[in-house]
Amino acid sequence: MKKVKAFPCGTVANMVCGFDILGFALNEPCDEFEVEITDEPGVHIINNDDYNLPTDPEKNVSGAAMLALMDETPDVRGFIIRSTKLIKPGSGIGSSAASAAGVVVAANYLLGNRFSKLDLVRFAMFGEKVASGVKHADNIAPCIYGGVTLIRAIHPLDIVSIEAPLLHVTVVHPQIEVRTSDARQILKQQVLLKDAIKQWGNIAGLVAGLLKSDYDLIGRSLEDVIIEPVRSILIPGFDEVKKRSKDAGALGGGISGSGPSIFMLSKDAATAHAVAKEMEDVFIKIGIDYHTHVTTINQQGVKLVSE
Amino acid sequence: MKKVKAFPCGTVANMVCGFDILGFALNEPCDEFEVEITDEPGVHIINNDDYNLPTDPEKNVSGAAMLALMDETPDVRGFIIRSTKLIKPGSGIGSSAASAAGVVVAANYLLGNRFSKLDLVRFAMFGEKVASGVKHADNIAPCIYGGVTLIRAIHPLDIVSIEAPLLHVTVVHPQIEVRTSDARQILKQQVLLKDAIKQWGNIAGLVAGLLKSDYDLIGRSLEDVIIEPVRSILIPGFDEVKKRSKDAGALGGGISGSGPSIFMLSKDAATAHAVAKEMEDVFIKIGIDYHTHVTTINQQGVKLVSE
Repeated sequence: MKKVKAFPCGTVANMVCGFDILGFALNEPCDEFEVEITDEPGVHIINNDDYNLPTDPEKNVSGAAMLALMDETPDVRGFIIRSTKLIKPGSGIGSSAASAAGVVVAANYLLGNRFSKLDLVRFAMFGEKVASGVKHADNIAPCIYGGVTLIRAIHPLDIVSIEAPLLHVTVVHPQIEVRTSDARQILKQQVLLKDAIKQWGNIAGLVAGLLKSDYDLIGRSLEDVIIEPVRSILIPGFDEVKKRSKDAGALGGGISGSGPSIFMLSKDAATAHAVAKEMEDVFIKIGIDYHTHVTTINQQGVKLVSE
Repeated sequence: MKKVKAFPCGTVANMVCGFDILGFALNEPCDEFEVEITDEPGVHIINNDDYNLPTDPEKNVSGAAMLALMDETPDVRGFIIRSTKLIKPGSGIGSSAASAAGVVVAANYLLGNRFSKLDLVRFAMFGEKVASGVKHADNIAPCIYGGVTLIRAIHPLDIVSIEAPLLHVTVVHPQIEVRTSDARQILKQQVLLKDAIKQWGNIAGLVAGLLKSDYDLIGRSLEDVIIEPVRSILIPGFDEVKKRSKDAGALGGGISGSGPSIFMLSKDAATAHAVAKEMEDVFIKIGIDYHTHVTTINQQGVKLVSE
């Protein structure tokens, strides 16, 4: 086998109260990467989309991840990556994580699955560093593992799968730009102990709600007293989207990653579609273009298709 | 039925990384409270031990909890409480919580279980207020519910049982005084966001480890970067107890509540006893008297015996 197609999907980092530690994978949208082993030394990137992403592998998210993998595969001379991005960069649903994760999962398949998922996360984090300057794993991990993942610690990397009940997800991507670096910069470096205590109560509640399939507890725990009050001001319509989504029956939700996308979780598909309608109404009223996705949590991670 | 005996047991609050939100109940030591309905109006306290605790119900932990319950039981004229404290006040294993929880659980039994466990926690918190000035629930909740409990939120009170695998507990109580108010006062009111993130990773890991019966994950998550580094300086020998306990096979542990007791969790009884031996050696060397308890997590809450 010399060639495989990988379909890494969008991911939602933070999951409201789990800033930098929780994330989950979506079943759509997904990118498409064709990865091929070649005798030509190095990583060769061919873009099949209109995003004009850099083709220098050191400056390209997929390329940087693949170079990290190649540091540990001296028997391989080169890879060709044919990239078709369908997850819009800057949307806040893990576009760069998909670029990084997709190619290393594909390469690992071609190499006989010699690396663990944890290794693949480690390689893909080099891609995140190119994208945002920070080697964070809260999109990469769910993209590769599927489901809901906890990054318990970064040094050393400790990833835990949090088995979740069936959850329907509605995502709205208002077509505005929120740069990850800006969204990081406005955060305060100190938090009040009393707010931190509220936050860890909610995180513990969310993890327990997921593992116990307790939808009410999940809903009660989807509360963020630290990050959301600061970041939500960068997203016009955020408060109204949240209120109308919950009124329509959503369990709860919030900013996806550093935004501008907003996600909501629901118990059933009908509610998730009703939530999408509310989200769309808000952005029509404000006059901002948007995309919505109504999907479910992806339990599989990166899908592979070999020809 | 006019009279019942209640045996509320010691509890370990915080559980290392879960400051103010997590706690668990022990199977020993336990207090003994005999509670009797009487036609004499008010709460009448008879102490059968040597602690000389106040008998004015408004100044007595059991009394204050019972008065809170009586505010919602206009059909009852009075209670007699005969108190035999076996959990030493000031030990850091929830002596005041046991005093508050024991009597309201007993009274509720005599009243035909008209109140929920959540109501009983609410009443018992008035006892904690007498003891420490703060209506905290992280000892009360496990004392009444049994097992490991999460206080997800205080307003409104939201208590979640976290089902745990069999865990053996070793507690050492060095005979020094650490006042709860002092232990609170030395805490910083602000924490670094990066430390808060580490902490919530560990809390999420601990809850997941307990619910998934993953002992290794429990052990990795028993880490506190915020409270322990500050409070442990009040407990001579703390670092050595922790190191030697882990070397002897303990999964991990830390300060029980606000101290001075230290607890360690182990997978089996033999390890828990070996840990006790290490703890004792440390305090013999330092020259501080101590008590040790080797026990398990109490799954039942307050035990009742009617005559």
